[in-house]
Amino acid sequence: MGSVQARMEAALQRFLPAPDIAPERLHLAMRYSVLGGGKRVRPLLAFAAGELSGADPARVEIVAAAVEMIHAYSLVHDDMPCMDNDVLRRGKPTCHVEFDEATALLVGDALQPLAFQLMAEHVIADSSVEHIEMLKILACASGSRGMAGGQALDLAGVGKSLSLAELEHMHIHKTGALIRAAVMLGARCGHGLDAEQHGRLERYAETIGLAFQVVDDVLDCDASTATLGKTAGKDAAQDKPTYVSILGLARARELAEELRTEAHAALASFGPAAARLRELADFIVLRKF
Amino acid sequence: MGSVQARMEAALQRFLPAPDIAPERLHLAMRYSVLGGGKRVRPLLAFAAGELSGADPARVEIVAAAVEMIHAYSLVHDDMPCMDNDVLRRGKPTCHVEFDEATALLVGDALQPLAFQLMAEHVIADSSVEHIEMLKILACASGSRGMAGGQALDLAGVGKSLSLAELEHMHIHKTGALIRAAVMLGARCGHGLDAEQHGRLERYAETIGLAFQVVDDVLDCDASTATLGKTAGKDAAQDKPTYVSILGLARARELAEELRTEAHAALASFGPAAARLRELADFIVLRKF
Repeated sequence: MGSVQARMEAALQRFLPAPDIAPERLHLAMRYSVLGGGKRVRPLLAFAAGELSGADPARVEIVAAAVEMIHAYSLVHDDMPCMDNDVLRRGKPTCHVEFDEATALLVGDALQPLAFQLMAEHVIADSSVEHIEMLKILACASGSRGMAGGQALDLAGVGKSLSLAELEHMHIHKTGALIRAAVMLGARCGHGLDAEQHGRLERYAETIGLAFQVVDDVLDCDASTATLGKTAGKDAAQDKPTYVSILGLARARELAEELRTEAHAALASFGPAAARLRELADFIVLRKF
Repeated sequence: MGSVQARMEAALQRFLPAPDIAPERLHLAMRYSVLGGGKRVRPLLAFAAGELSGADPARVEIVAAAVEMIHAYSLVHDDMPCMDNDVLRRGKPTCHVEFDEATALLVGDALQPLAFQLMAEHVIADSSVEHIEMLKILACASGSRGMAGGQALDLAGVGKSLSLAELEHMHIHKTGALIRAAVMLGARCGHGLDAEQHGRLERYAETIGLAFQVVDDVLDCDASTATLGKTAGKDAAQDKPTYVSILGLARARELAEELRTEAHAALASFGPAAARLRELADFIVLRKF
């Protein structure tokens, strides 16, 4: 995993505009928000899915960077005062604290098209038709019926009592959509997966997307701010429903374990080519940060 | 012009998610921010450029809607308290006033990928390679070296005394980049323009982009809030440099007229196919709102 993370950091360094290109302060803030932190879960998933389909890592690097830019922009906007009003992210002051609110707004606004630009200006698929389909996948995952819609559902849930199904519906959009895009785009950089295999990979992606969130809620409940690198216990403090608040800590831990088993089951017929995807399912559920 | 505007309104109605699709409030706010207002200058330019290149209007409708969604998102974010903090837009309360700040943030965040999704899921070019190039043009125009970068330059200029060249540099990005994209994407929906013709069309687009801003500054200086449908005199009140503050009102009016002449000159060799583009250059400079 470390080698993918190092490769990703170098790629993001390269793809982000240099801090001496105008507008300098915006580019500095974009780099501040994307570089030097994060578990890079989505890039790890994209590379693992690319291994499954025999993809050229140079292609996967592009889609992984694009997905990570969308993810980074969503964190910057999510941390702003009108959203979660958070001051700490990845162990550093959040973008609007380090710079200012207007700059944080523009950082997100500019990272989003940079993701699409990256994917449009590099060869990432065997055919141009497939290439356009991949751009569409990223757009759908990011929009009002994907991640941005999940944020809206999250906002609407504050102070309300959600059912487990409603909570799941929110997370399938808020974090699940982009995790799914990372897996499917990584796989599509390669070749040879048929529709049935795509279906199983989607099932894997949806399952670990949920597992990721369940584990996040468990960690948010019992870890310290120092370990997380972001403010711990903030969901409870903001009266946001979580898997822990609905299911209790013990049942939430069980659910994460069940989802890990399901993720492995979805990969069963892939054989050794899916080894990395299996590792990541384990990592996502067993991580301590 | 009215027929393009009506066609555009119907197209945007259709392309925006219905207000009864979840998340309902977000979709309602997206529709509030895009529909029922605006001069639709960018769509008008896209259709006029499409006429020049013999483009199928069904294709132009897609790129025009995509550009207009990017434009609409930029207005929503620009009006937010951390940016211009404006309460009136197109004669209605701004999005964050009518809804709330978090929703306004998400409206912009969701309109942006919807623009890319639209362009990715419809046939808009003769070849897939050209199609991908068009997606790249929209991404570049929207990003940190296009519109979002122009916003950052605008922010950095508040309270400063800018030279005419610095003001022009800012506007080439803030409004010029997307106007240029509207013209070039409209033209690329068709066929038969060579590189030299593309160059002349770019010159036209850059010239009317600047003229648009000069006229905006003139109108902002001497029109009333009721006529503009947005708060008049706000640039002066916010101590923002404008063409009027740098050149004076009379010279700014002259400059707009000179740019109109230049725009016509760039179109000279196109003959009657450029009639609409000529009309729009006149409209942009001679408009009273």
